[in-house]
Amino acid sequence: MAKISIMGAGSWGLGLSILLNNNGHEVTVWSVFEEELDVLRKNHENTKCLPGVKIPENIKFNGNTKEAVESADILVLAVASPYTRSTAKLLAPYVKDEQYIVNVGKGIEESSLMTLCDVIKEEIPQATVAVLSGPSHAEEVGRGIPTTCVIGTAKKEDAIFLQNIFMSDVFRVYISPDVLGICLGGSLKNVIALAAGIADGLGYGDNTKAALITRGIAEISRLGLAMGAKVETFAGLSGIGDLIVTCESMHSRNRRAGILIGKGYTKDQAMEEVKMVVEGVYSAKAALLLAKKYNVSMPIVEQINKVLFEDMNASLAVSELMLRDKKIEADSISWE
Amino acid sequence: MAKISIMGAGSWGLGLSILLNNNGHEVTVWSVFEEELDVLRKNHENTKCLPGVKIPENIKFNGNTKEAVESADILVLAVASPYTRSTAKLLAPYVKDEQYIVNVGKGIEESSLMTLCDVIKEEIPQATVAVLSGPSHAEEVGRGIPTTCVIGTAKKEDAIFLQNIFMSDVFRVYISPDVLGICLGGSLKNVIALAAGIADGLGYGDNTKAALITRGIAEISRLGLAMGAKVETFAGLSGIGDLIVTCESMHSRNRRAGILIGKGYTKDQAMEEVKMVVEGVYSAKAALLLAKKYNVSMPIVEQINKVLFEDMNASLAVSELMLRDKKIEADSISWE
Repeated sequence: MAKISIMGAGSWGLGLSILLNNNGHEVTVWSVFEEELDVLRKNHENTKCLPGVKIPENIKFNGNTKEAVESADILVLAVASPYTRSTAKLLAPYVKDEQYIVNVGKGIEESSLMTLCDVIKEEIPQATVAVLSGPSHAEEVGRGIPTTCVIGTAKKEDAIFLQNIFMSDVFRVYISPDVLGICLGGSLKNVIALAAGIADGLGYGDNTKAALITRGIAEISRLGLAMGAKVETFAGLSGIGDLIVTCESMHSRNRRAGILIGKGYTKDQAMEEVKMVVEGVYSAKAALLLAKKYNVSMPIVEQINKVLFEDMNASLAVSELMLRDKKIEADSISWE
Repeated sequence: MAKISIMGAGSWGLGLSILLNNNGHEVTVWSVFEEELDVLRKNHENTKCLPGVKIPENIKFNGNTKEAVESADILVLAVASPYTRSTAKLLAPYVKDEQYIVNVGKGIEESSLMTLCDVIKEEIPQATVAVLSGPSHAEEVGRGIPTTCVIGTAKKEDAIFLQNIFMSDVFRVYISPDVLGICLGGSLKNVIALAAGIADGLGYGDNTKAALITRGIAEISRLGLAMGAKVETFAGLSGIGDLIVTCESMHSRNRRAGILIGKGYTKDQAMEEVKMVVEGVYSAKAALLLAKKYNVSMPIVEQINKVLFEDMNASLAVSELMLRDKKIEADSISWE
């Protein structure tokens, strides 16, 4: 059994703390917000992030960064993407050589266009960085609903070690060497979830949404391939799997914001109404910049950017997608 | 503008007749059931298959097989899969050399394990056979909801010709040379839809369903690849796209039957309750036979067969899927 510190006390950090505790590990939850830990110590519940889910009694809470890092074999980094670099900086002095850091955050750093794993590697070069991703609403993992994920690492032996740590009879873990592909899928899905929400808000049906999901992962794959990721990853749990769950579920605030925009709200009104960070709005910008940098065609990302930042009418954006040049579905398998 | 005969007056045939009529073509709907055509002539609606959708006045109805076939440039074959061979036999004497037949049915012939396109080619060797597939509930196409599909043909010029026939501002058509992959995706999706329904019926969440969809298309791709299809097709509209729409929508009777089985109904009780052909039950058998024939691992298909035909407990089937050997996500991108 391993000693694991979960860095971050939001819904995903807490969901994973329950899973890992149930797997028999010694789990500590750390947060930079001491008052958040006090509430957890008292109530064993985070009523804001993960209402109705009890945090088991033997999970410890510790706001001391040095202790939380140094006492652990494995760190699970579970902070919102805008705080990944600052948190990594905070942890760096205490991280041992080759200590495991499993990143479970999703996003692209806007200023550098780096994935979160690359940000962590830059700040904590001595660590062994892994990524865990897949279709996994924290609410459901916390309640023991059957869930599958993939863990990506540079070395196979590390992947197998971590697979054994996380896997249980309700949490099936696959492994992969494609850390970049896993990071990109998780980050870019929110743009497509916004588009899917907009289609819902416009009153379109299941056909339209399935089209956006399928063509959405096609353009994410094109970008990923150009950046050096593997196409198989986008067809997997951290790619299409996570995209499906994000586009179909009302748990997703990106989809909820999209629905409002489809109904005629402006981006700012929608973000005001959803009352949480709508990551897709930021990822949309980053995705467009990456598409330009790598010279990849991303028509859905382009239209979403026009709707978000150029006041384009949402219904017109969908029409333009339907009517652009007639295409072969996959260039790689064209006729001779 | 082309002369098109739609062979079959069910929901998909009628949905496509409206689309093609709106595209300016001269459309005739044929059926082997004269009384079905009489009702359509009188009411311009099929209240059983496509309630609330009006069939435009200038669509003709003709039960004379010779006339319907000989007067058309293009035949759209829209009959339920068990009737594909018998209908093809009926049409064969009147089909001109290289006349287009666009198959829009989905299924595997149980006795021969052939795709429907191969069945048609066997019965009507003089025809130019194409397939149209994708996430496209007839109810939504009939109502003009934005929809995308893919057309597969052996020759590129035929694909481009048919793309121009079907494409409109609400129906975007991609083209592909992978006829086999398109046929397989459409046929095997219903097995996974049954599994997704069972997970819903057991009270599992979005995570579980996304896992079944993602790993489902992974095993369909493995089989398709072994049979000579292209992996890209399964990541496309006729693969994952159609699978998503089938697993998420209550329009799908396969999913509805699965929900009942997950709630404890037997297969026969579920089929009785759904009151329609539940194709997934037959495709499940065919898929298992194909998996054995091509020596491909299809764990979800195996478990579904055990639930359907060996009275295995549905919850136990899911547990077995979660706990089998720990795997690499995609064998093709393993570590060196």
